[in-house]
Amino acid sequence: MKTLILGADGYIGSELANNIDGLRVDSIYKRNLLKKLKIEPLYNVDIAIDNLFVDITNKAEVDHLIKDNKPDVIIDLSEQPSAPYSMTSYETGIDTVKNNLTGTLNLIYSIRDYSPDTHLIKLGTMGQFGTPNFHIEEGFMDIEYQGRKDTIPIPKSPYSIYHLSKSFDSDALMFACRVWGLRVTDLQQGFVHSMASYDKPSRFCYDGIFGTALNRFMVQAIAGHPLTVYGEGGQTRGILHIKDTIQCIKLAMENPPDKGEYRVANQLTEWKSINELAQMVYEAGRLHGLDVSVEHYKNPRKEKEKHYYSVSHKVMEDYGLKPNLLDVKMIAESIEFLMQHKDNINTDQILNSPSW
Amino acid sequence: MKTLILGADGYIGSELANNIDGLRVDSIYKRNLLKKLKIEPLYNVDIAIDNLFVDITNKAEVDHLIKDNKPDVIIDLSEQPSAPYSMTSYETGIDTVKNNLTGTLNLIYSIRDYSPDTHLIKLGTMGQFGTPNFHIEEGFMDIEYQGRKDTIPIPKSPYSIYHLSKSFDSDALMFACRVWGLRVTDLQQGFVHSMASYDKPSRFCYDGIFGTALNRFMVQAIAGHPLTVYGEGGQTRGILHIKDTIQCIKLAMENPPDKGEYRVANQLTEWKSINELAQMVYEAGRLHGLDVSVEHYKNPRKEKEKHYYSVSHKVMEDYGLKPNLLDVKMIAESIEFLMQHKDNINTDQILNSPSW
Repeated sequence: MKTLILGADGYIGSELANNIDGLRVDSIYKRNLLKKLKIEPLYNVDIAIDNLFVDITNKAEVDHLIKDNKPDVIIDLSEQPSAPYSMTSYETGIDTVKNNLTGTLNLIYSIRDYSPDTHLIKLGTMGQFGTPNFHIEEGFMDIEYQGRKDTIPIPKSPYSIYHLSKSFDSDALMFACRVWGLRVTDLQQGFVHSMASYDKPSRFCYDGIFGTALNRFMVQAIAGHPLTVYGEGGQTRGILHIKDTIQCIKLAMENPPDKGEYRVANQLTEWKSINELAQMVYEAGRLHGLDVSVEHYKNPRKEKEKHYYSVSHKVMEDYGLKPNLLDVKMIAESIEFLMQHKDNINTDQILNSPSW
Repeated sequence: MKTLILGADGYIGSELANNIDGLRVDSIYKRNLLKKLKIEPLYNVDIAIDNLFVDITNKAEVDHLIKDNKPDVIIDLSEQPSAPYSMTSYETGIDTVKNNLTGTLNLIYSIRDYSPDTHLIKLGTMGQFGTPNFHIEEGFMDIEYQGRKDTIPIPKSPYSIYHLSKSFDSDALMFACRVWGLRVTDLQQGFVHSMASYDKPSRFCYDGIFGTALNRFMVQAIAGHPLTVYGEGGQTRGILHIKDTIQCIKLAMENPPDKGEYRVANQLTEWKSINELAQMVYEAGRLHGLDVSVEHYKNPRKEKEKHYYSVSHKVMEDYGLKPNLLDVKMIAESIEFLMQHKDNINTDQILNSPSW
């Protein structure tokens, strides 16, 4: 299967490139962004991509890539992934929308014109749906209103410019299927944690801008920093192990939608509240003799701290996903690996999220 | 009330500027676009604005405008308004998204930072909702799903890049209210027809790119061109007289939402199918002795030609809107006025819509 991996220098992208054959493409946008923001991942990871020069916000470069390769499948991981970054300033907000939406628009136009059979797999986010008071289905839901029935996309309620940009992406992809007959899988991902391997791990961020909650907590436990629970900690999110992200993308590749079909999978294996995650890291840290404490900080984000949460995640399980569910033992193993890099931890970047 | 009218050189904007006091701002984007596309409105209208140099896609210019004026209300009519234009090419699609979404983002950031109490009134479109199989409420609808209740925004289903860009706008405005506490009225407008006055009418387009159906049909009747019904003609749309658009904007100005409130009004007074509009123009033309015929053309658009249509439009009526409802006599009067410009009609631009 002729495969393009866009964003092959990222946390997920570089891991994926270890697991599948494909042309690895990146513009080093994220690596440069980390440098610019003076944020250091926990350890260095070499650049291992095949083509440095494709910026998906540049249409001519995207056209060239698609015309030259006519890929069977494109896995698009090339987005600016941070809500806090997007909320830092006007410039970072616009940069996020530009990188994500312009990138998506360039891709769908170029696929339409030069490789219309290509299966586009896009990494989306569960976060765009916010926390509605009903069960979140995968992609669409059947409603009845005043006695009339219809199927509607899951309503979106983004709480950051990043999540807004992802909702634009999903709407643009749906449009491309509905009007242009493209085939797209939109993977609405929960937050990803842990590392897929210990000998060749991908970039690991623990800062307040790019790190995800569990990964941050593990590093905080090692550093002797209180676990930074934002607000009440009742915020509940879908999560999955990065090994399962890789499994899901492979399963999506093997199960292309029909032409004109916009297929959505909610890419998560379970959900946990922030308090539950902190408690598990507390227990895992104790197994290593770490003196772990939990502290509630003023929430820099706008979000509900107590809410209903229930999400379908059947599409990937029907394809054969074998979930790596979180437990204290798994966290303890990750902590053991991460402890090797203890000296690299810079506690100044633990609470560096902007408030909004 | 300190008022800014953005897009004061347009069909609605210039009419509005005749009716209310306010700083008239435009970048002449649309006027230049018509020139570039070699599309001529039916007659010339002078430029009558106070500030030529504000391009809303330029943040520094927007900041300057908002800081200097600290307006009570901004009426934003500054968008690229044509679905066919947006579907012409990659360039016109991107131009549409850039003009509309970048403009909206610049406005909400600038209002947030420099004039957070400003009431932003935005001209949106009913078209972003597509043609769902249920009654379209104004802004939000209450649903029950598997026994749980919530209020969701009306689902969007755009069928052109223009409509997609408008759905981005609405989502960005909702975000600005939810997260930043702005106050916004989003006027989801049906298509606008006729002219508000005969002595100082605003720009009147009848071409396949920028003209709206009724206005096009009236000119076609005068030119002896068959009325161009696309496809079956069962497409039903909310419509309103341009006089009512002006009334609605004035009513929105007098009824600002609270801080943090995203208020939606469906701005239409009635709905008609394309076949009904053609029939009315046929009858009105006959009153003037015009030899009117109706022809069904291959539909250049992607849209349903037969569908359910029912829309709430109570907000404006509760504010006191007195609708100017369409009838054959009203159309006959408009035709009488338009007949003065018969010699300007260029039939080459009647069927110049791109197909998608």
